[in-house]
Amino acid sequence: MDIRTVTVKENILIENNQKAEELRKNLQEKGIFFINVMASPGAGKTTLLVELINRLKTKYNIGVMEADIDGDVDAERISKLTGVKSIQVHTSGACHLTAQMVEDAINEFNVKDLNLLILENVGNLVCPAEFDTGSHLNMMLLSVPEGYDKPLKYPLMFQVSQIAVITKIDTLPVFKFDIELCKQYIHRRNKDAEIYVVSALKQQGIGELVKAIEKRMA
Amino acid sequence: MDIRTVTVKENILIENNQKAEELRKNLQEKGIFFINVMASPGAGKTTLLVELINRLKTKYNIGVMEADIDGDVDAERISKLTGVKSIQVHTSGACHLTAQMVEDAINEFNVKDLNLLILENVGNLVCPAEFDTGSHLNMMLLSVPEGYDKPLKYPLMFQVSQIAVITKIDTLPVFKFDIELCKQYIHRRNKDAEIYVVSALKQQGIGELVKAIEKRMA
Repeated sequence: MDIRTVTVKENILIENNQKAEELRKNLQEKGIFFINVMASPGAGKTTLLVELINRLKTKYNIGVMEADIDGDVDAERISKLTGVKSIQVHTSGACHLTAQMVEDAINEFNVKDLNLLILENVGNLVCPAEFDTGSHLNMMLLSVPEGYDKPLKYPLMFQVSQIAVITKIDTLPVFKFDIELCKQYIHRRNKDAEIYVVSALKQQGIGELVKAIEKRMA
Repeated sequence: MDIRTVTVKENILIENNQKAEELRKNLQEKGIFFINVMASPGAGKTTLLVELINRLKTKYNIGVMEADIDGDVDAERISKLTGVKSIQVHTSGACHLTAQMVEDAINEFNVKDLNLLILENVGNLVCPAEFDTGSHLNMMLLSVPEGYDKPLKYPLMFQVSQIAVITKIDTLPVFKFDIELCKQYIHRRNKDAEIYVVSALKQQGIGELVKAIEKRMA
C-alpha cells in the first residue's frame, strides 16, 4: 500500500475504534452482551451458532446479525433452525463490518429485552480482525480442514480473539491436523486465548463452549 | 463505508487496474504466462500447486510467489516439494496483492528464461478478487469442506475467475456438498467459468486441469 492509502486507512481505523468503544459502552449500559464471531468462509460459523443459540435461547433474548457480501441463506437458516430473530447485513462488497454498520443494524432489531447480540462476521481471516465491531467478546473459529498452520499466516485474527474454537473435529481422521501444535501456534499469537475443540455435527464440546460464553456474560 | 473511503478506494482500484494492464502486457511480451491462484485459507492451494508444478516443470521454467500476511511455510514447502524457485511475499497486513507488489516481487526472481509465473494469493475470498494482479489467468479454488453455497456469498471471486477448481473431493463422503448445485451457482456468477473437480491427495482430476492451463498458455 502506498503512503496515502496507509494514512487514510489509519484514520478510518482510528475513527472506527472510537465508534466501537462508544458502542461497546452503550450496549453494556443497556445490558446487552455482544459477541463477534469470525472465521474463514466455510469454517462452520452458522452451524456452530445454531447449536450455541439453541442452548442459550431459553436463558437469553438473542438477536443475530448475519454479515455477508451477498446472499441471505445464513439469516434464513438461523431463523429457521433456532427461531430467534436474525437479520442479514450486506456489506456492499466490503470484507468486514465496521462498528457503525453494526450500530445501524442494531436499530433494525425489534427484540424485547434483547440481552445477547451475536454477529456472524464476513467469512475472512484478515479484514474483520482489523475492524473492532464494538463487541464484548471476539470468538474465532478454525476448522480442521483448513489446517493447523493458520495462526502462523493470519496473526491478527488470533491476537484479537479471546476465544478460539477448533471446529469440525469429527473430520480429524480425514485430515492431517495437529491439535497440540495448533494450540501452541494460537498461544504464540495470544497467550491468554481460551481454546475450545468442538464438533457441531457430533455435538462434542458444545457444552464447555456455552459455559465459557456464559462466564464472560456474568 | 463512508463516501470518502469509497472514493479513495475507487482511485486505488483504478490505479491498480492500470498498473495491472501494463504488467500483463509486459509479461506477455517477455513470454511469461502469469497465473493468479485464489481461495479461502486452507482450501488446498499449496497442495494443489505442488501437484500442478510437478507436472508442468519439465516443460516450463516456473517461478512461484507465495503471498501471506506472515510466515514463510508455503514458500519453503513449494521449494522443498517441487524444486522450483519460490519466494515469500509479505503483504504488511493487507488482505491482497496489488499489481505493483507483484511487479516488485518479480524483480527478485532469478530464473533463467522464466515462462510460467504462479502467484498463490492471500487466503481470502474477498479482497484478492478486487485487485487485478496483472495475471493472464485467475484460478480460484473452492474446497468441499467449505460448502457449496460460497458462490452465493462471494460473487466477485467467482466472477473474476476463468477457472474454478473444486478441491478435496476425496472428502465428499464426510461433507454435504452438492457438486451439481455448486456448478450452477458458479455459472450464475460467471457463465463462462470452466469448472474442474480434483483431489490433490488422491491425484484425481489433476491431468485435466494441467491440460486446461496449458491450453490457455498456448
